Amino acid sequence: MKFDHIDTPAALIDIPRMQKNIARMQAHMNTLGVAFRPHVKTTKCIDVVRAQIAAGARGITVSTLKEAEAFFAAGVSDILYAVSIVPSKLPRALALRRQGCDLKLVVDNPTAAAAVAAFSDQHGETFEVWIEVDTDGHRSGITPEQDTLLEVGRILHENGVTVGGVMTHAGSSYELHTPQALTALAEQERAGCVRAAQRLRDAGIPCPAVSVGSTPTALAAAQLDGVTEVRAGVYVFFDLVMHNVGVCALEDIALSVLATVIGHQADKGWAILDAGWMAMSRDRGTSKQAHDFGYGQPCLLNGTPLAGYVVSGANQEHGILSSAEEGVQADDIAERFPIGMKLRILPNHACATGAQFPEYHAVSADGESVEWRRFQGW
Amino acid sequence: MKFDHIDTPAALIDIPRMQKNIARMQAHMNTLGVAFRPHVKTTKCIDVVRAQIAAGARGITVSTLKEAEAFFAAGVSDILYAVSIVPSKLPRALALRRQGCDLKLVVDNPTAAAAVAAFSDQHGETFEVWIEVDTDGHRSGITPEQDTLLEVGRILHENGVTVGGVMTHAGSSYELHTPQALTALAEQERAGCVRAAQRLRDAGIPCPAVSVGSTPTALAAAQLDGVTEVRAGVYVFFDLVMHNVGVCALEDIALSVLATVIGHQADKGWAILDAGWMAMSRDRGTSKQAHDFGYGQPCLLNGTPLAGYVVSGANQEHGILSSAEEGVQADDIAERFPIGMKLRILPNHACATGAQFPEYHAVSADGESVEWRRFQGW
Repeated sequence: MKFDHIDTPAALIDIPRMQKNIARMQAHMNTLGVAFRPHVKTTKCIDVVRAQIAAGARGITVSTLKEAEAFFAAGVSDILYAVSIVPSKLPRALALRRQGCDLKLVVDNPTAAAAVAAFSDQHGETFEVWIEVDTDGHRSGITPEQDTLLEVGRILHENGVTVGGVMTHAGSSYELHTPQALTALAEQERAGCVRAAQRLRDAGIPCPAVSVGSTPTALAAAQLDGVTEVRAGVYVFFDLVMHNVGVCALEDIALSVLATVIGHQADKGWAILDAGWMAMSRDRGTSKQAHDFGYGQPCLLNGTPLAGYVVSGANQEHGILSSAEEGVQADDIAERFPIGMKLRILPNHACATGAQFPEYHAVSADGESVEWRRFQGW
Repeated sequence: MKFDHIDTPAALIDIPRMQKNIARMQAHMNTLGVAFRPHVKTTKCIDVVRAQIAAGARGITVSTLKEAEAFFAAGVSDILYAVSIVPSKLPRALALRRQGCDLKLVVDNPTAAAAVAAFSDQHGETFEVWIEVDTDGHRSGITPEQDTLLEVGRILHENGVTVGGVMTHAGSSYELHTPQALTALAEQERAGCVRAAQRLRDAGIPCPAVSVGSTPTALAAAQLDGVTEVRAGVYVFFDLVMHNVGVCALEDIALSVLATVIGHQADKGWAILDAGWMAMSRDRGTSKQAHDFGYGQPCLLNGTPLAGYVVSGANQEHGILSSAEEGVQADDIAERFPIGMKLRILPNHACATGAQFPEYHAVSADGESVEWRRFQGW
C-alpha cells in the first residue's frame, strides 16, 4: 500500500473489497430473478455507481434531488427519488424530467398525491409516482391493508399521474442479528409490498413495479416472488454495524479512514489520532449492538484488524485509540503506536463516515490509489 | 422570515443572534483584558470570521491545515493550528509560511518537537511552535509539572525553533452544568497554563503567549491573570449542548436547520421531516445531559421553540418529530404539523451540524437571507 502521499485523515476505498461486495449482491439478485437498483446515498460518487451499473444494476435510488441532478448529469437516467415528495420540491423534479431524466417520485399520503396531480396538470407534465409502503413500522409509508393506499392510488391514477409501482424499505433489519430473523423480515417486507401491489391492481390501478430492500434483507431473502426489483445501499462498502448484523466479515469492509498517530497519554493507555468525529462521523451505531466498536476498529495499513484495540473516544479532530477491553490499559501504547504511524480505521456506518469527506482515495490491489470525488448537500 | 425560496433541509444562521453572541464574548474578553482568538472550526466560513474580527478578534484558531489555507487565502494571516503536528504535515505548513502566513504550530511531545526542529533546519525556515498543556486530563497535552514540558521546550528552543507560547483547552467543561463548576474549571485551566509558562520561562525558554479556552470556561472565567489570549469556537452559534451546560438560552442559538414536514404516522404521533441525521448530524451530545433533546428542538419559523416536541429519531433523510415526553403521544400531530409546513430545528452541536452543509443561509433581522459558503475536508 502506497499511502505516503495521502494527507490524513482520508477516506480510503479498498477497490477489490468493493468489487467483491458488488458482485456478491448482484449475483444474489440474479439468482432471485429480480432487477437491482442500488441506493447511491451511501457513496454519492459516480465512480462507484459506474462499477455497480457495470455489474448489472438497473437504475439507481437517490435520497436527495441533488443526487438525482448530479447522477443525471453524469449519464444515469433511471432514477427513483425514494423520499416522500412535498410541493416545494416539485419544480426541481419538473426541471429534471424536462431535461429527459426518467425520475420517479414517491408519496405516502393523499396531500402529497394531490399536490403532484395538481402540479402535473398545471405544467402539462406526466409525473411517475411510486407509493411508499410500510412493512415494518420503522418510519414512513402506508401499511398494505390501509384504505389510504387505495385513496392515494386513485388520486394519482384518476388525475393522469402514472402510478409506477410500490416501494418499501424494511430498515428495522439494522436492529437484527441472526440469519433466521433477517430472512423472516425479508419475507415480511416482500409479502407486504406484494400485497399492496395486489390491492392496487384489484382496484384497477396499474402497479408495474414492486420494489423492496435494505442491505440485510436483500442479502437474506430466500425468494422474492412478485417483487420486480431490490434496492440496497450500504452493501457496497459494508461497515461495523453490518458486521454486527451478521451480513459481512470485518475483511469485507471496503471503506476505512486513514489516520496518523499524533500523540500519546501513555499513563492512560491512549494513543491520539488525527481522525476524530469530523472524520469518523458522530455515528455510534454499534453502541446498541452486541459488539460496541466505539468510533471505529483500527487496522494495519494492509487491512488486518488490530484485535484488542478500538477508537474509544473522539473530539472534532482527535481520536483516542485504546484497549478495547473495559478496565484494561494498554501499557505499551507509545511503543506499539509511535508518533507518525498510519492506521486504517473501519467505520460504524459507511454512509455517515463517507459524508464527512469531499473525496475518496480508491486503492487498487497493487496499492496505487486514485481520487474519486463525492458531493455533499441537497 | 422569507424562506419560501430556500430548499430544505438548509442550515440557517440568525445574524442578529450571531452578532449578539460575538459581542457578548468579545465584551467579556475586553473586560478581562485578554486578546481573543476565535476557533473557526465551528463555522469554516469567512463571512462569520469577518464578523468576529470586526468585533475585535485578533487572529484565528484552526483545527485543520485546510482551514489555515482557506482563511489565509481570504486574508487572515495570524493563525494557530491547534492540533499536534506530525512530520507528514510539515510540507503544507512550510508552504503556508513561505507565502507569508503567520502560522503557529502545536506540539505536545518530544518526537514531534524534534521533527519540527529537523525540518526547520533542513528547509531554513524558522517555525513558531506553541506547546500544548493538559489542564483537565480530557485529551492531549503535557501536564504543567511534567518533565516532558521542559524537554520539549528545550528541543525547540535549542534548535532554533521559536517557542511562541503555551496553549490549553479545558474541553471537559462540556460535561459541567453549574456556574460554580465552570468558574472553578476556568481557574484550573488558567492556573495550569500560567504555571506551565512560568516553568518554561524559569528554565530560560521564552514563552510569550499563554492561550486558554473553551466556550464554557471563557464565559465563566472571573479573572485571567497571566493569560494573554483566549480561544473559543461554538459560542458564535451556541447549541443545545451549550444550553444544557448553562451558558446560553435557547433564544441565543443562532444555527438552525430549516426542515419541511413530508409525512405522518398519525397513529404513532409522528410527523416525518426531511431533516434526518444527514442534516442534523449524528451528534447526540445532549443524550448524556440533564435535558435530552433527541436530534434537535423544533421551533416555529420566527424562532420560537415548540415546547413539548422533539426530533426523537433520525434516518439519513428522515427525521421523526414527536412528543418530547416519553410515553406521551401527540394526538393532533397531522393537524398541528401539516404536510409542507416548515420548521427550524435547533441542533445538539453546531460544529457537527454545520459540517453537514456546503452553505449557510444567513438571515438578517428583516428576514432577507444571503448564502454564505463553508468548506469541508482536510
